[in-house]
Amino acid sequence: MPRVFASIEELRRHVAGRRRSGASIGLVPTMGALHAGHARLMERAREGCGEVVASIFVNPLQFDRSDDLERYPRTLDADLAVCERAGVDTVFAPSVHEMYPVPMVCAVDVQRLADHLCGAFRPGHFRGVATVVLKLLQIVQPDVAYFGEKDAQQLAVVRRMVTDLNVPVRIVGVDTVREPDGLALSSRNQRLNAQERELAPCLYRALQAAAAAIAGGITDAAEVRRRALAELPEHPLLRLEYLDVVDREEMQPVTSITGPVTVAAALWVGGTRLIDNISSRPGQL
Amino acid sequence: MPRVFASIEELRRHVAGRRRSGASIGLVPTMGALHAGHARLMERAREGCGEVVASIFVNPLQFDRSDDLERYPRTLDADLAVCERAGVDTVFAPSVHEMYPVPMVCAVDVQRLADHLCGAFRPGHFRGVATVVLKLLQIVQPDVAYFGEKDAQQLAVVRRMVTDLNVPVRIVGVDTVREPDGLALSSRNQRLNAQERELAPCLYRALQAAAAAIAGGITDAAEVRRRALAELPEHPLLRLEYLDVVDREEMQPVTSITGPVTVAAALWVGGTRLIDNISSRPGQL
Repeated sequence: MPRVFASIEELRRHVAGRRRSGASIGLVPTMGALHAGHARLMERAREGCGEVVASIFVNPLQFDRSDDLERYPRTLDADLAVCERAGVDTVFAPSVHEMYPVPMVCAVDVQRLADHLCGAFRPGHFRGVATVVLKLLQIVQPDVAYFGEKDAQQLAVVRRMVTDLNVPVRIVGVDTVREPDGLALSSRNQRLNAQERELAPCLYRALQAAAAAIAGGITDAAEVRRRALAELPEHPLLRLEYLDVVDREEMQPVTSITGPVTVAAALWVGGTRLIDNISSRPGQL
Repeated sequence: MPRVFASIEELRRHVAGRRRSGASIGLVPTMGALHAGHARLMERAREGCGEVVASIFVNPLQFDRSDDLERYPRTLDADLAVCERAGVDTVFAPSVHEMYPVPMVCAVDVQRLADHLCGAFRPGHFRGVATVVLKLLQIVQPDVAYFGEKDAQQLAVVRRMVTDLNVPVRIVGVDTVREPDGLALSSRNQRLNAQERELAPCLYRALQAAAAAIAGGITDAAEVRRRALAELPEHPLLRLEYLDVVDREEMQPVTSITGPVTVAAALWVGGTRLIDNISSRPGQL
């Protein structure tokens, strides 16, 4: 089993020892409720680093709704088993008090990176994400940190924060892991009932239609969007929050597609909000 | 002479080598135009650390007025001589382009820490200070960083940022160095003409009167302020920007003085803006 630390000081001491022994340090930040997508991140870290640290922390700062925070699944024992199978050496599982002993004053402002997509619907979310990721990077001081491509806007925020603030870490994005029917793995999938689970793959089908349209030469983002939406069935359990074509660095909407883009969407399936995205570029699948 | 680096990558390589040799790293961030106050910071770093790095960078992000940025003194050759005399090993003197190769998106939001004192008169100043200090801390990764107590609000911002974001560094505040007549050393003192220089010490006299009032048992901040203002002569070259009694951690104004406080002020002397502060607590000079 991985070693588990709840204390920042003890974790730092352990990681410093490993660093002195010449191990490169890899960090996989998670909120727990681990699935095969997280395991893929951990496996990538295992391949690349001498010491793999996974953090498990449900960060209150990035939840815009308290019911979502309360309902977020917490499954530490199962999570530790996933970590073990994926070859994680060390788990950092701090309490909220350990991470926020006094009310925060300073935070990372991510400005226009949060203007669109999820940022437009979850006020303060990416500020909370950037702030906790920066804290984790300062606590663990990894050489490499691994993030899933599924959370495209989060990855863009983290990459830009690390660049802008000169944080000495390499950020690696890891491909989304999907169910056979295309549904992206997510801790929130646990909440879907059978009927919702059957509907959910339409999200990825819509994104695939968008990517195919772009690869096929359609440059008008509005037309791409129309073709994607045509894949979403009219159903009382489905409600689209957004589906947009954005540039990859800053997640700003584009109207005419001339280079690499990300098509990102959020879809409510019953009471569960799912997100997904796909990358595409003109003339190339 | 100290070694001088303009490149982040080369500086990091040098510091990493020194760290591997077992040297503790001390950082003294400056904007150049070095005087005996900076030298005191460097001497403190010299006593405490195996490798002393001084940064010299006039940070555009923290200037709210472009004329102030343009007029800020730049004296690299003289600065290097000060560094050498104070025992600095390494100077980091990057260009603006090296520090800001692309326009910044992410920044450190310092929120209420910038609501009062200088923060109220210099919009964005402490956001710019916090952001560049965080960048320097990420670039150099010092064990200890040294800041002058003269810039009390800056020191409070840096301390809180480091705490909130878990930056692995110890922040040391160093006493203000003064001229025999009490004027706090500042790079801006160079701009004073003879008449202005003669007037300038009234700022510290006012702060001393405030500290004496507090030590003497006056707990009403408004009364303390009145006694301080009585020390400032009516003169066409003098214009007080603020003089306030604040708590030491968050620089928030207090009305009734029950514990340690800082009395901080900014005074325009002709076209030059001087700041200073003094710490006091009830019943104790």
